[in-house]
Amino acid sequence: MKYKFSQKMTELKPSAIREIFKNLGQPGAIAFSAGNPAPESFPVEFISEASADIFAHDACSALQYSVTEGYVPLREAVTARLRDKFSTGGEGDTTLIVSGGQQGIELTAKVMCDEGDTVIAENPSFIGALNSFRSLGLKLAGVPLEDDGMNLNALEDALKTNPRAKLIYTIPTFHNPVGVTTSLEKRRGIYALAKKYGAVIIEDNPYGELRLSGEDVPTIKSMDTDGIVVYCGSFSKILSAGMRVGFLSAPSDIATKIVVAKQVEDVHTNIFFQMIAHRFMTQFDMDAHIEKIRALYRYKCGLMLDTMARELPGDVRWIKPQGGLFLWCTLPDRLDAGKFVADAAAEKVFVVPGSAFQCDQSLPTKAFRLNYSTPTDDDIVRGIKILGSIARM
Amino acid sequence: MKYKFSQKMTELKPSAIREIFKNLGQPGAIAFSAGNPAPESFPVEFISEASADIFAHDACSALQYSVTEGYVPLREAVTARLRDKFSTGGEGDTTLIVSGGQQGIELTAKVMCDEGDTVIAENPSFIGALNSFRSLGLKLAGVPLEDDGMNLNALEDALKTNPRAKLIYTIPTFHNPVGVTTSLEKRRGIYALAKKYGAVIIEDNPYGELRLSGEDVPTIKSMDTDGIVVYCGSFSKILSAGMRVGFLSAPSDIATKIVVAKQVEDVHTNIFFQMIAHRFMTQFDMDAHIEKIRALYRYKCGLMLDTMARELPGDVRWIKPQGGLFLWCTLPDRLDAGKFVADAAAEKVFVVPGSAFQCDQSLPTKAFRLNYSTPTDDDIVRGIKILGSIARM
Repeated sequence: MKYKFSQKMTELKPSAIREIFKNLGQPGAIAFSAGNPAPESFPVEFISEASADIFAHDACSALQYSVTEGYVPLREAVTARLRDKFSTGGEGDTTLIVSGGQQGIELTAKVMCDEGDTVIAENPSFIGALNSFRSLGLKLAGVPLEDDGMNLNALEDALKTNPRAKLIYTIPTFHNPVGVTTSLEKRRGIYALAKKYGAVIIEDNPYGELRLSGEDVPTIKSMDTDGIVVYCGSFSKILSAGMRVGFLSAPSDIATKIVVAKQVEDVHTNIFFQMIAHRFMTQFDMDAHIEKIRALYRYKCGLMLDTMARELPGDVRWIKPQGGLFLWCTLPDRLDAGKFVADAAAEKVFVVPGSAFQCDQSLPTKAFRLNYSTPTDDDIVRGIKILGSIARM
Repeated sequence: MKYKFSQKMTELKPSAIREIFKNLGQPGAIAFSAGNPAPESFPVEFISEASADIFAHDACSALQYSVTEGYVPLREAVTARLRDKFSTGGEGDTTLIVSGGQQGIELTAKVMCDEGDTVIAENPSFIGALNSFRSLGLKLAGVPLEDDGMNLNALEDALKTNPRAKLIYTIPTFHNPVGVTTSLEKRRGIYALAKKYGAVIIEDNPYGELRLSGEDVPTIKSMDTDGIVVYCGSFSKILSAGMRVGFLSAPSDIATKIVVAKQVEDVHTNIFFQMIAHRFMTQFDMDAHIEKIRALYRYKCGLMLDTMARELPGDVRWIKPQGGLFLWCTLPDRLDAGKFVADAAAEKVFVVPGSAFQCDQSLPTKAFRLNYSTPTDDDIVRGIKILGSIARM
């Protein structure tokens, strides 16, 4: 049968990253393409013990239906940490638990936007968020991303020329895929422009705890005296990605709508891992654990950067991030990015072409993304050497 | 700030059932309003042991990102059971794991329907599904539900008069809220009409394993030689509701689109509980466990029916179901359903008014829904007595 799919889904292609994943099964493959946390970053012993304790003493609560808003003790712990550590979330905000940061983004767009509305995003940006906007029939307006964040003039132009621009989507801290961190000045600028033009900001911050160097910059949400910022966070990079637990802090009226939208998507986030996350925050030295992950990624990022400096030709450029999981590289004009990515894949080294992250995916780019948290140290060295030899051809 | 929400969410109200839940915390409350499985139905010891084993031997797989389609061994086990036990799913179908049956319904509607399209549903029907359609900006056309399923003439009328009718949503087995099971003849009729008018059927079957009496009727999906049925199932009622693991069997082209839509909602369903569900299906006597749940609900349903026969006035009517979790009662003309539900709540007995399940919620009904799986035996007897005294007033 020939199906007639919804217009929004007809236009949506599977993520290029997923297509690459399909080739990762082969022996000897080196995955610089994932965004996976390092397996060493999971506190397995703690989770195992907490799990045994939950099933021994609170099994029925862990296995029964629960409320859509999330496990109350976890919501309270997240609220406290956001407030105490990031000055984020205030009296007018509500913390909700969602099934990963991805769901927080998608739900916010669902409650704020009708089909045909526009979301303004950094260009390039996180493909999962861009695709969630596309899946809702929304248009994307990309704003060039500079070393210190969005170009504010281009942001204002986009707000002016798109009267149906309802949302500004930004990853101000350790941007995926580019790795840059938006400056305090530009954060203030983004906030002021959103307020001026009546847009709501989605501040996506899944990597915020993974600072490798430099000083924290206040979140945009911490400036939110007008109730226009939805802050999305996640446990995926600090506890477990597979458990699918994230959170958001939203102005309470928006949160109320998000709860209704979440209820009809998955009723609630699996309650057992909400209980695990709560214990992680309150009965475990979460900060020491995060410090260990930071040290691990600081080392892996440094190893990759050092190897790149040694092995890649001088006309390949990249940005040194202060945190997160990714390195963004730009090829010189003499190299075709599509061919480079394909040649690397033929040598079993998988990187993500920059086109995947474009608001307009038909536009060519010279860039590609590398991940340093997933591969082993040996694979980092071996894979970068292979990329170097391809780039010199 | 005054927010401008999306049109579809502006119109969507929180579930009436949830509003009732808010009052359940008070001491002595009797919840006939839930759809929760009995706590005794969770195989806690098995889950606890399986959990310890997974964290001891396969922790990294259980905690890392996984693929959107679902854990392959679980997909295979579900495919095999659907085929062997229900003759459901064939060569042209793909089994996917979703975050509860609810997500399967919502995703199917998202990929098949544009805003303004129509979903035809039994009237009354499951509020979670109806609200998921509403959340996507879809219109609902209700078809009267009779003792043996939808009125087929009304179904054909709805298909004729709604040229944008893309989906028929049906719960043919142990309907929620009404409890009736659609006859084989009517299943064939629904299938034939869907085919004739080019609509896709969502066959929602979360209760199918919970038969208390009578013989299984073939699923509509088992007749699907044309690739027009998406079958949604769930582990919520036989293993754990809180773990949020369901599945669907869809024609492969539709499944491919559902995967893309799921990826942008929650990336994948939490992988740990997919592993638990797989072990439940392959390393545990699942059928014996389901038989225990059936015996429990057979007893509880019988206790509620017996008490109703004794305690409710003769002009209150109800339907005896062959399975599932619910009893559907209709009040006589002399009683106002809204007042009855409110009077019961004042006595701390919570039932769901029939209006909650209507495609057009503004229409009055004389009905209310009772659940027998959640309350204790004592509460069943005490609560029905209270309802009887109110109904006699």
